[in-house]
Amino acid sequence: MTDFDEAVAFAERLADAAAAEIRVRFRQVVKTERKADVTPVTEADRAAERAIRAMLAAERPDDGIAGEEYGATGGHSNFTWVVDPIDGTKAFMTGRPTFVTLIALLENDRPVLGIIEQPITRDRWIGAEGRPTTLNGQPIRTRACAELHAASFSTTGPDLFPAEDDPVYRALSDGAGIQTYGGDGYAYGLLAAGWIDVVLESGLKLHDFAALAPVVQGAGGVITDWSGRPLRSGSSGRVLAVGSPDLHSRLLERIRAIRLDRPES
Amino acid sequence: MTDFDEAVAFAERLADAAAAEIRVRFRQVVKTERKADVTPVTEADRAAERAIRAMLAAERPDDGIAGEEYGATGGHSNFTWVVDPIDGTKAFMTGRPTFVTLIALLENDRPVLGIIEQPITRDRWIGAEGRPTTLNGQPIRTRACAELHAASFSTTGPDLFPAEDDPVYRALSDGAGIQTYGGDGYAYGLLAAGWIDVVLESGLKLHDFAALAPVVQGAGGVITDWSGRPLRSGSSGRVLAVGSPDLHSRLLERIRAIRLDRPES
Repeated sequence: MTDFDEAVAFAERLADAAAAEIRVRFRQVVKTERKADVTPVTEADRAAERAIRAMLAAERPDDGIAGEEYGATGGHSNFTWVVDPIDGTKAFMTGRPTFVTLIALLENDRPVLGIIEQPITRDRWIGAEGRPTTLNGQPIRTRACAELHAASFSTTGPDLFPAEDDPVYRALSDGAGIQTYGGDGYAYGLLAAGWIDVVLESGLKLHDFAALAPVVQGAGGVITDWSGRPLRSGSSGRVLAVGSPDLHSRLLERIRAIRLDRPES
Repeated sequence: MTDFDEAVAFAERLADAAAAEIRVRFRQVVKTERKADVTPVTEADRAAERAIRAMLAAERPDDGIAGEEYGATGGHSNFTWVVDPIDGTKAFMTGRPTFVTLIALLENDRPVLGIIEQPITRDRWIGAEGRPTTLNGQPIRTRACAELHAASFSTTGPDLFPAEDDPVYRALSDGAGIQTYGGDGYAYGLLAAGWIDVVLESGLKLHDFAALAPVVQGAGGVITDWSGRPLRSGSSGRVLAVGSPDLHSRLLERIRAIRLDRPES
């Protein structure tokens, strides 16, 4: 086993531990709190992140940690684990099995490993630099889609775009063949597997997007910010993921043309 | 077994048959067509409805049938089976296990039996007049929710409300504590089980809403059109479902006040 093989195997064990904490709390009475940024959080979010942090402290003590619920802990290696225990807390709270656990490994500021896990349906996507992305152990590929009007477009919710980003959202969503909502990180897994063609989001944080990049790229898709730059810690949080590289290029052109008229953004 | 027990058992077998057709087609390459009303349809929708119609023809030849994909067939009894093989075809097409099969039995124009089935997660809600609603065999109840600002609100998509209905949607959605999208008939099952408090929709057809009423009512919730009338064949398709009867009454008042200003509707 190389070091990287070991990191992938360890990441899978982190996902197992988080899933065990989440499964026992799904569709139980949920005590919800609001965090300082008014987004909801449940005991399942916290218990899953604590389980992951305990394993990291025991087995990867030199690596840094950045978790949604318990913040950042510096490390001494070049590696940082980025964790969102429940991406899609509202879906979890309403009993929908479409939330995901996101686990990423950054080497310096570059995501080199990502897991997207749905603990109820037991869908697990693994993306690792230089390898084909798998869904439940099987290699997957994005599908070809030549034109936006033939594309299946997805975003978590139309109200999540700030006013300055709304023209881009409207242009891509209205131009697509079908639109679906909800899904958070789950939608990027569905894109990697060839069931969705375009995902557009705004306002994502590092723990939201770090795991997505290796999964989408290892399946043949392209995921960047709205200027075409790779996703790194410090990215704007505006994300465009497209299954077909050629369509990704053309959508970037569309976005650039729209945003030229909006010099404030 | 009473006749009604037999009808419930038969409806479960219809749901089994539909689920078998749908499961083998989930997350396979989907050939989508557009129907005359431009909504998408797949071979899974059609195969599931054909399986149900074959069983109805063989075992309930006197009853009428109204199916989303193959239309209405008159009967000689007072009973009509209303079927939507895949409610949430877009969710099915994008690999999300949140579409449902809806099967209802009308006595004259009144829904007396409803099944909401999610074939992938194997969630089955059964609502039957005079009995407690069950989810996978366990009786369920809606949860108490005294105020809209504490409520979890759900609708399939914000763009599905026509302009004249938009003020009502905005008032209830913006006033709620959290909003979630997607789900179609699935959301009403989640409401019956106490994970969602309010579902508001517009433009539903008989095959969309007939199965929902017995499920919601048998769990202690209230589901009506926006004027407070029970859902019947011929209803407007504007649906308000609320887990808490008292909150339902107050939301009807809110809706009435909003719509008074809009005499055209």
